[in-house]
Amino acid sequence: MKTQPIRRERARLPAAERRRQIIEVTTGLIAERGFWGLSMQDVADGCGLTVPGLLHHVGSKDNLLIAVLEHRDETDAATLAAELEVRVDQLWAEGAGITLRQVCAALVRRNAGQPEIVRLFAVLEAESLAPGHPAHRYFRERQRNTREMLASLAPGDDAARFELAGQVIAMMDGLQIQWLRDPASTDLVAAWERAATRLFDAL
Amino acid sequence: MKTQPIRRERARLPAAERRRQIIEVTTGLIAERGFWGLSMQDVADGCGLTVPGLLHHVGSKDNLLIAVLEHRDETDAATLAAELEVRVDQLWAEGAGITLRQVCAALVRRNAGQPEIVRLFAVLEAESLAPGHPAHRYFRERQRNTREMLASLAPGDDAARFELAGQVIAMMDGLQIQWLRDPASTDLVAAWERAATRLFDAL
Repeated sequence: MKTQPIRRERARLPAAERRRQIIEVTTGLIAERGFWGLSMQDVADGCGLTVPGLLHHVGSKDNLLIAVLEHRDETDAATLAAELEVRVDQLWAEGAGITLRQVCAALVRRNAGQPEIVRLFAVLEAESLAPGHPAHRYFRERQRNTREMLASLAPGDDAARFELAGQVIAMMDGLQIQWLRDPASTDLVAAWERAATRLFDAL
Repeated sequence: MKTQPIRRERARLPAAERRRQIIEVTTGLIAERGFWGLSMQDVADGCGLTVPGLLHHVGSKDNLLIAVLEHRDETDAATLAAELEVRVDQLWAEGAGITLRQVCAALVRRNAGQPEIVRLFAVLEAESLAPGHPAHRYFRERQRNTREMLASLAPGDDAARFELAGQVIAMMDGLQIQWLRDPASTDLVAAWERAATRLFDAL
Protein backbone atom coordinates (compact mmCIF):
# COMPACT_ATOMS: atom_id res chain seq x y z
CA MET A 1 0.00 0.00 0.00
CA LYS A 2 2.90 2.36 0.65
CA THR A 3 4.55 1.91 -2.71
CA GLN A 4 2.34 4.25 -4.77
CA PRO A 5 1.52 7.17 -2.50
CA ILE A 6 1.62 9.84 -5.20
CA ARG A 7 -0.58 7.94 -7.62
CA ARG A 8 -3.12 7.19 -4.92
CA GLU A 9 -3.17 10.82 -3.89
CA ARG A 10 -3.69 11.99 -7.46
CA ALA A 11 -6.52 9.55 -7.89
CA ARG A 12 -8.57 11.03 -5.06
CA LEU A 13 -10.88 13.38 -6.94
CA PRO A 14 -14.08 14.81 -5.46
CA ALA A 15 -17.02 12.50 -6.28
CA ALA A 16 -18.72 14.88 -8.75
CA GLU A 17 -15.47 15.52 -10.62
CA ARG A 18 -14.71 11.80 -10.69
CA ARG A 19 -18.14 11.14 -12.11
CA ARG A 20 -17.62 13.69 -14.86
CA GLN A 21 -14.26 12.11 -15.69
CA ILE A 22 -15.77 8.59 -15.84
CA ILE A 23 -18.58 9.80 -18.12
CA GLU A 24 -16.14 11.56 -20.41
CA VAL A 25 -13.84 8.55 -20.75
CA THR A 26 -16.80 6.22 -21.32
CA THR A 27 -18.28 8.52 -23.98
CA GLY A 28 -15.13 8.28 -26.07
CA LEU A 29 -14.87 4.50 -25.68
CA ILE A 30 -18.52 3.84 -26.62
CA ALA A 31 -18.25 6.12 -29.65
CA GLU A 32 -15.35 3.91 -30.81
CA ARG A 33 -16.66 0.45 -30.04
CA GLY A 34 -20.28 0.65 -28.91
CA PHE A 35 -21.66 -0.66 -25.65
CA TRP A 36 -20.97 -4.31 -26.49
CA GLY A 37 -17.35 -3.46 -27.16
CA LEU A 38 -16.99 -1.41 -23.97
CA SER A 39 -14.58 -2.83 -21.42
CA MET A 40 -14.89 -1.72 -17.80
CA GLN A 41 -11.16 -2.35 -17.50
CA ASP A 42 -10.54 0.26 -20.22
CA VAL A 43 -12.81 2.77 -18.47
CA ALA A 44 -11.01 2.12 -15.17
CA ASP A 45 -7.60 2.46 -16.84
CA GLY A 46 -8.64 5.72 -18.51
CA CYS A 47 -9.60 7.13 -15.12
CA GLY A 48 -6.66 5.77 -13.10
CA LEU A 49 -9.06 3.55 -11.12
CA THR A 50 -9.37 -0.17 -10.46
CA VAL A 51 -12.49 -1.92 -11.77
CA PRO A 52 -13.90 -2.31 -8.22
CA GLY A 53 -13.17 1.37 -7.65
CA LEU A 54 -15.01 2.24 -10.86
CA LEU A 55 -17.98 0.06 -9.88
CA HIS A 56 -18.09 1.81 -6.52
CA HIS A 57 -18.81 5.05 -8.41
CA VAL A 58 -21.20 3.79 -11.08
CA GLY A 59 -22.80 0.63 -9.72
CA SER A 60 -22.73 -1.40 -12.94
CA LYS A 61 -21.88 -1.25 -16.64
CA ASP A 62 -25.58 -0.80 -17.51
CA ASN A 63 -25.90 2.05 -15.03
CA LEU A 64 -22.82 3.68 -16.48
CA LEU A 65 -24.38 3.64 -19.94
CA ILE A 66 -27.57 5.25 -18.70
CA ALA A 67 -25.54 7.86 -16.78
CA VAL A 68 -23.70 8.76 -20.00
CA LEU A 69 -26.98 9.14 -21.89
CA GLU A 70 -28.68 11.20 -19.20
CA HIS A 71 -25.65 13.44 -18.91
CA ARG A 72 -25.74 14.00 -22.69
CA ASP A 73 -29.42 14.80 -22.76
CA GLU A 74 -29.04 17.36 -19.96
CA THR A 75 -26.00 18.99 -21.53
CA ASP A 76 -27.61 18.98 -24.97
CA ALA A 77 -30.81 20.61 -23.74
CA ALA A 78 -28.73 23.38 -22.16
CA THR A 79 -26.74 23.91 -25.35
CA LEU A 80 -29.89 23.91 -27.45
CA ALA A 81 -31.53 26.49 -25.21
CA ALA A 82 -28.43 28.68 -25.47
CA GLU A 83 -28.45 28.35 -29.29
CA LEU A 84 -32.08 29.49 -29.32
CA GLU A 85 -31.52 32.13 -26.66
CA VAL A 86 -34.25 30.80 -24.35
CA ARG A 87 -34.24 29.13 -20.94
CA VAL A 88 -34.20 25.31 -20.86
CA ASP A 89 -37.73 25.23 -19.43
CA GLN A 90 -38.95 27.36 -22.34
CA LEU A 91 -37.55 25.03 -24.98
CA TRP A 92 -40.76 23.14 -25.63
CA ALA A 93 -43.16 25.57 -24.00
CA GLU A 94 -46.11 26.73 -26.03
CA GLY A 95 -46.03 30.40 -26.79
CA ALA A 96 -42.23 30.63 -26.71
CA GLY A 97 -42.53 31.57 -30.37
CA ILE A 98 -39.94 29.09 -31.61
CA THR A 99 -40.71 27.34 -34.89
CA LEU A 100 -39.95 23.73 -35.77
CA ARG A 101 -37.50 24.90 -38.40
CA GLN A 102 -35.63 27.07 -35.90
CA VAL A 103 -35.34 24.21 -33.41
CA CYS A 104 -34.09 21.84 -36.09
CA ALA A 105 -31.50 24.33 -37.33
CA ALA A 106 -30.29 24.83 -33.75
CA LEU A 107 -30.11 21.06 -33.18
CA VAL A 108 -28.06 20.60 -36.32
CA ARG A 109 -25.73 23.52 -35.56
CA ARG A 110 -25.12 22.10 -32.10
CA ASN A 111 -24.46 18.60 -33.45
CA ALA A 112 -22.12 19.90 -36.14
CA GLY A 113 -19.84 21.01 -33.32
CA GLN A 114 -19.73 17.67 -31.50
CA PRO A 115 -19.10 14.82 -33.95
CA GLU A 116 -17.98 12.41 -31.24
CA ILE A 117 -21.26 12.80 -29.36
CA VAL A 118 -23.28 12.35 -32.52
CA ARG A 119 -21.30 9.18 -33.22
CA LEU A 120 -22.00 7.98 -29.68
CA PHE A 121 -25.72 8.39 -30.26
CA ALA A 122 -25.62 6.87 -33.75
CA VAL A 123 -23.92 3.73 -32.44
CA LEU A 124 -26.17 3.38 -29.40
CA GLU A 125 -29.30 4.15 -31.39
CA ALA A 126 -28.57 1.26 -33.75
CA GLU A 127 -27.25 -1.16 -31.11
CA SER A 128 -30.21 -0.53 -28.83
CA LEU A 129 -32.69 -1.66 -31.49
CA ALA A 130 -32.01 -5.16 -30.12
CA PRO A 131 -34.44 -5.79 -27.25
CA GLY A 132 -31.64 -7.18 -25.04
CA HIS A 133 -29.65 -3.93 -25.09
CA PRO A 134 -29.56 -2.03 -21.77
CA ALA A 135 -30.54 1.23 -23.52
CA HIS A 136 -33.40 -0.34 -25.50
CA ARG A 137 -36.14 1.23 -23.38
CA TYR A 138 -34.27 4.51 -22.99
CA PHE A 139 -34.07 5.02 -26.75
CA ARG A 140 -37.66 3.96 -27.36
CA GLU A 141 -38.85 6.60 -24.91
CA ARG A 142 -36.37 9.13 -26.25
CA GLN A 143 -37.63 8.65 -29.82
CA ARG A 144 -41.22 9.03 -28.66
CA ASN A 145 -40.49 12.17 -26.61
CA THR A 146 -38.41 13.84 -29.29
CA ARG A 147 -41.04 13.21 -31.91
CA GLU A 148 -43.83 14.52 -29.68
CA MET A 149 -41.87 17.66 -28.82
CA LEU A 150 -41.06 18.40 -32.46
CA ALA A 151 -44.64 17.60 -33.50
CA SER A 152 -45.90 20.15 -30.97
CA LEU A 153 -44.05 22.85 -32.96
CA ALA A 154 -45.22 21.69 -36.39
CA PRO A 155 -48.16 23.12 -38.34
CA GLY A 156 -51.32 21.23 -39.30
CA ASP A 157 -53.54 18.70 -37.59
CA ASP A 158 -52.22 16.01 -35.23
CA ALA A 159 -51.58 13.43 -37.96
CA ALA A 160 -49.74 15.94 -40.17
CA ARG A 161 -47.62 17.19 -37.26
CA PHE A 162 -46.64 13.70 -36.19
CA GLU A 163 -45.76 12.75 -39.76
CA LEU A 164 -43.62 15.84 -40.38
CA ALA A 165 -41.81 15.38 -37.05
CA GLY A 166 -40.94 11.80 -38.01
CA GLN A 167 -39.62 12.89 -41.39
CA VAL A 168 -37.58 15.69 -39.89
CA ILE A 169 -35.98 13.33 -37.36
CA ALA A 170 -35.30 10.74 -40.06
CA MET A 171 -33.64 13.32 -42.30
CA MET A 172 -31.49 14.70 -39.48
CA ASP A 173 -30.41 11.19 -38.38
CA GLY A 174 -29.60 10.16 -41.93
CA LEU A 175 -27.70 13.31 -42.89
CA GLN A 176 -25.66 13.03 -39.70
CA ILE A 177 -24.55 9.53 -40.67
CA GLN A 178 -23.47 10.82 -44.10
CA TRP A 179 -21.56 13.67 -42.48
CA LEU A 180 -19.82 11.41 -39.96
CA ARG A 181 -18.91 9.04 -42.80
CA ASP A 182 -17.27 11.75 -44.81
CA PRO A 183 -16.80 14.86 -42.66
CA ALA A 184 -14.22 16.49 -44.95
CA SER A 185 -16.58 16.77 -47.91
CA THR A 186 -19.89 17.28 -46.07
CA ASP A 187 -21.14 20.52 -44.56
CA LEU A 188 -23.83 19.23 -42.18
CA VAL A 189 -25.44 22.60 -41.57
CA ALA A 190 -25.69 23.41 -45.28
CA ALA A 191 -26.93 19.89 -46.13
CA TRP A 192 -29.65 20.22 -43.50
CA GLU A 193 -30.69 23.66 -44.74
CA ARG A 194 -31.16 22.35 -48.27
CA ALA A 195 -33.13 19.34 -46.98
CA ALA A 196 -35.22 21.55 -44.70
CA THR A 197 -36.11 23.80 -47.61
CA ARG A 198 -37.35 20.75 -49.49
CA LEU A 199 -39.28 19.35 -46.50
CA PHE A 200 -40.84 22.60 -45.32
CA ASP A 201 -41.51 24.15 -48.70
CA ALA A 202 -43.71 21.19 -49.58
CA LEU A 203 -46.08 22.16 -46.77
CA MET B 1 -11.61 -38.91 -31.41
CA LYS B 2 -13.86 -41.93 -31.41
CA THR B 3 -16.27 -40.67 -28.78
CA GLN B 4 -18.38 -38.39 -31.00
CA PRO B 5 -18.65 -40.15 -34.35
CA ILE B 6 -22.23 -39.11 -35.08
CA ARG B 7 -21.68 -35.47 -34.32
CA ARG B 8 -18.55 -35.33 -36.43
CA GLU B 9 -20.36 -36.99 -39.30
CA ARG B 10 -23.25 -34.54 -39.12
CA ALA B 11 -20.87 -31.61 -39.08
CA ARG B 12 -19.36 -32.47 -42.45
CA LEU B 13 -21.29 -30.18 -44.77
CA PRO B 14 -20.18 -29.34 -48.31
CA ALA B 15 -18.01 -26.21 -48.24
CA ALA B 16 -20.55 -23.92 -49.97
CA GLU B 17 -23.36 -25.04 -47.68
CA ARG B 18 -21.13 -24.60 -44.63
CA ARG B 19 -20.28 -21.10 -45.78
CA ARG B 20 -23.95 -20.21 -46.12
CA GLN B 21 -24.61 -21.57 -42.65
CA ILE B 22 -21.73 -19.59 -41.13
CA ILE B 23 -22.92 -16.38 -42.83
CA GLU B 24 -26.48 -16.91 -41.61
CA VAL B 25 -25.46 -17.55 -38.00
CA THR B 26 -23.10 -14.55 -38.04
CA THR B 27 -25.78 -12.27 -39.50
CA GLY B 28 -28.09 -12.96 -36.57
CA LEU B 29 -25.35 -12.49 -33.99
CA ILE B 30 -24.11 -9.18 -35.44
CA ALA B 31 -27.69 -7.85 -35.65
CA GLU B 32 -27.96 -8.50 -31.90
CA ARG B 33 -24.58 -7.30 -30.65
CA GLY B 34 -22.70 -5.64 -33.46
CA PHE B 35 -19.25 -6.59 -34.68
CA TRP B 36 -17.51 -5.62 -31.44
CA GLY B 37 -19.86 -7.87 -29.49
CA LEU B 38 -19.42 -10.78 -31.92
CA SER B 39 -17.74 -13.84 -30.44
CA MET B 40 -16.15 -16.36 -32.79
CA GLN B 41 -16.92 -18.98 -30.16
CA ASP B 42 -20.65 -18.19 -30.51
CA VAL B 43 -20.46 -18.42 -34.30
CA ALA B 44 -18.63 -21.75 -34.02
CA ASP B 45 -21.16 -23.05 -31.48
CA GLY B 46 -24.06 -21.99 -33.70
CA CYS B 47 -22.57 -23.98 -36.58
CA GLY B 48 -21.46 -27.03 -34.60
CA LEU B 49 -17.82 -26.20 -35.33
CA THR B 50 -14.72 -25.55 -33.26
CA VAL B 51 -13.15 -22.07 -33.49
CA PRO B 52 -10.16 -23.42 -35.48
CA GLY B 53 -12.64 -25.23 -37.75
CA LEU B 54 -14.54 -21.95 -38.25
CA LEU B 55 -11.32 -20.05 -38.98
CA HIS B 56 -10.41 -22.71 -41.55
CA HIS B 57 -13.54 -21.69 -43.47
CA VAL B 58 -13.45 -17.91 -43.07
CA GLY B 59 -9.83 -16.99 -42.41
CA SER B 60 -10.45 -14.33 -39.74
CA LYS B 61 -13.15 -12.45 -37.91
CA ASP B 62 -12.63 -9.41 -40.15
CA ASN B 63 -12.94 -11.58 -43.27
CA LEU B 64 -16.12 -13.10 -41.90
CA LEU B 65 -17.66 -9.64 -41.52
CA ILE B 66 -16.80 -8.67 -45.07
CA ALA B 67 -18.18 -12.02 -46.32
CA VAL B 68 -21.47 -11.31 -44.55
CA LEU B 69 -21.68 -7.85 -46.12
CA GLU B 70 -20.79 -9.00 -49.61
CA HIS B 71 -23.30 -11.84 -49.38
CA ARG B 72 -26.00 -9.34 -48.36
CA ASP B 73 -25.20 -6.94 -51.17
CA GLU B 74 -25.38 -9.75 -53.75
CA THR B 75 -28.63 -11.15 -52.36
CA ASP B 76 -30.14 -7.70 -52.04
CA ALA B 77 -29.29 -6.71 -55.60
CA ALA B 78 -31.01 -9.89 -56.84
CA THR B 79 -34.12 -9.21 -54.72
CA LEU B 80 -34.22 -5.60 -55.87
CA ALA B 81 -34.00 -6.61 -59.51
CA ALA B 82 -36.84 -9.11 -58.99
CA GLU B 83 -38.96 -6.40 -57.30
CA LEU B 84 -38.41 -4.15 -60.31
CA GLU B 85 -38.77 -6.99 -62.83
CA VAL B 86 -35.41 -6.34 -64.48
CA ARG B 87 -32.15 -8.30 -64.64
CA VAL B 88 -29.50 -7.45 -62.04
CA ASP B 89 -27.22 -5.97 -64.71
CA GLN B 90 -30.05 -3.67 -65.81
CA LEU B 91 -30.60 -2.26 -62.33
CA TRP B 92 -28.50 0.84 -62.77
CA ALA B 93 -28.25 0.80 -66.55
CA GLU B 94 -29.19 3.95 -68.39
CA GLY B 95 -32.23 3.55 -70.56
CA ALA B 96 -33.77 0.80 -68.41
CA GLY B 97 -36.59 3.28 -67.84
CA ILE B 98 -36.59 2.95 -64.06
CA THR B 99 -37.13 6.13 -62.08
CA LEU B 100 -35.49 7.07 -58.79
CA ARG B 101 -38.84 6.91 -57.06
CA GLN B 102 -39.49 3.38 -58.34
CA VAL B 103 -36.08 2.16 -57.16
CA CYS B 104 -36.57 3.71 -53.73
CA ALA B 105 -40.01 2.17 -53.34
CA ALA B 106 -38.62 -1.23 -54.31
CA LEU B 107 -35.72 -0.84 -51.85
CA VAL B 108 -38.12 0.01 -49.05
CA ARG B 109 -40.53 -2.84 -49.90
CA ARG B 110 -37.63 -5.27 -49.88
CA ASN B 111 -36.31 -3.96 -46.56
CA ALA B 112 -39.75 -4.04 -44.96
CA GLY B 113 -39.62 -7.81 -45.41
CA GLN B 114 -36.22 -8.32 -43.75
CA PRO B 115 -36.02 -6.40 -40.46
CA GLU B 116 -33.09 -8.45 -39.16
CA ILE B 117 -30.98 -7.57 -42.19
CA VAL B 118 -31.87 -3.91 -41.92
CA ARG B 119 -30.87 -4.03 -38.26
CA LEU B 120 -27.57 -5.68 -39.23
CA PHE B 121 -26.82 -2.82 -41.61
CA ALA B 122 -27.98 -0.13 -39.16
CA VAL B 123 -25.63 -1.44 -36.46
CA LEU B 124 -22.67 -1.88 -38.80
CA GLU B 125 -23.27 1.45 -40.50
CA ALA B 126 -23.02 3.24 -37.15
CA GLU B 127 -20.20 1.11 -35.70
CA SER B 128 -18.12 1.46 -38.85
CA LEU B 129 -18.06 5.26 -38.59
CA ALA B 130 -15.06 4.69 -36.30
CA PRO B 131 -11.92 4.56 -38.47
CA GLY B 132 -10.64 1.45 -36.65
CA HIS B 133 -13.66 -0.67 -37.63
CA PRO B 134 -12.94 -3.46 -40.15
CA ALA B 135 -15.90 -2.37 -42.32
CA HIS B 136 -14.98 1.33 -42.25
CA ARG B 137 -13.72 1.37 -45.83
CA TYR B 138 -16.46 -0.96 -47.06
CA PHE B 139 -19.21 1.36 -45.83
CA ARG B 140 -17.51 4.50 -47.09
CA GLU B 141 -17.38 3.02 -50.59
CA ARG B 142 -20.88 1.60 -50.27
CA GLN B 143 -22.28 5.03 -49.33
CA ARG B 144 -20.47 6.62 -52.26
CA ASN B 145 -21.64 3.98 -54.75
CA THR B 146 -25.24 3.95 -53.57
CA ARG B 147 -25.43 7.71 -53.76
CA GLU B 148 -23.90 7.80 -57.24
CA MET B 149 -26.28 5.11 -58.50
CA LEU B 150 -29.34 6.86 -57.10
CA ALA B 151 -28.10 10.22 -58.38
CA SER B 152 -27.81 8.76 -61.88
CA LEU B 153 -31.60 8.19 -61.82
CA ALA B 154 -32.49 11.62 -60.44
CA PRO B 155 -33.59 14.64 -62.47
CA GLY B 156 -31.71 17.91 -62.78
CA ASP B 157 -28.04 18.89 -63.07
CA ASP B 158 -25.24 17.01 -61.31
CA ALA B 159 -25.40 19.06 -58.10
CA ALA B 160 -29.18 18.69 -57.83
CA ARG B 161 -29.03 14.95 -58.51
CA PHE B 162 -26.32 14.39 -55.91
CA GLU B 163 -28.22 16.44 -53.35
CA LEU B 164 -31.54 14.65 -53.87
CA ALA B 165 -29.83 11.23 -53.73
CA GLY B 166 -28.28 12.14 -50.38
CA GLN B 167 -31.63 13.30 -49.00
CA VAL B 168 -33.39 10.18 -50.23
CA ILE B 169 -30.79 7.92 -48.59
CA ALA B 170 -30.93 9.93 -45.36
CA MET B 171 -34.72 9.69 -45.24
CA MET B 172 -34.73 5.95 -45.93
CA ASP B 173 -32.04 5.30 -43.29
CA GLY B 174 -33.83 7.42 -40.71
CA LEU B 175 -37.31 5.99 -41.32
CA GLN B 176 -35.90 2.48 -41.09
CA ILE B 177 -34.51 3.21 -37.64
CA GLN B 178 -37.92 4.51 -36.52
CA TRP B 179 -39.59 1.40 -37.92
CA LEU B 180 -37.14 -0.98 -36.25
CA ARG B 181 -37.59 0.91 -32.98
CA ASP B 182 -41.34 0.50 -33.03
CA PRO B 183 -42.32 -2.05 -35.69
CA ALA B 184 -45.83 -2.64 -34.33
CA SER B 185 -46.99 0.93 -34.85
CA THR B 186 -44.95 1.83 -37.96
CA ASP B 187 -45.76 0.89 -41.55
CA LEU B 188 -42.41 1.42 -43.24
CA VAL B 189 -43.74 1.30 -46.80
CA ALA B 190 -46.51 3.81 -46.07
CA ALA B 191 -44.14 6.09 -44.10
CA TRP B 192 -41.72 6.09 -47.02
CA GLU B 193 -44.46 6.84 -49.55
CA ARG B 194 -45.58 9.89 -47.58
CA ALA B 195 -41.97 11.08 -47.23
CA ALA B 196 -41.30 10.44 -50.93
CA THR B 197 -44.31 12.50 -51.89
CA ARG B 198 -42.91 15.38 -49.86
CA LEU B 199 -39.37 15.00 -51.25
CA PHE B 200 -40.29 14.48 -54.89
CA ASP B 201 -43.20 16.89 -55.07
CA ALA B 202 -40.89 19.71 -54.07
CA LEU B 203 -38.89 19.21 -57.27
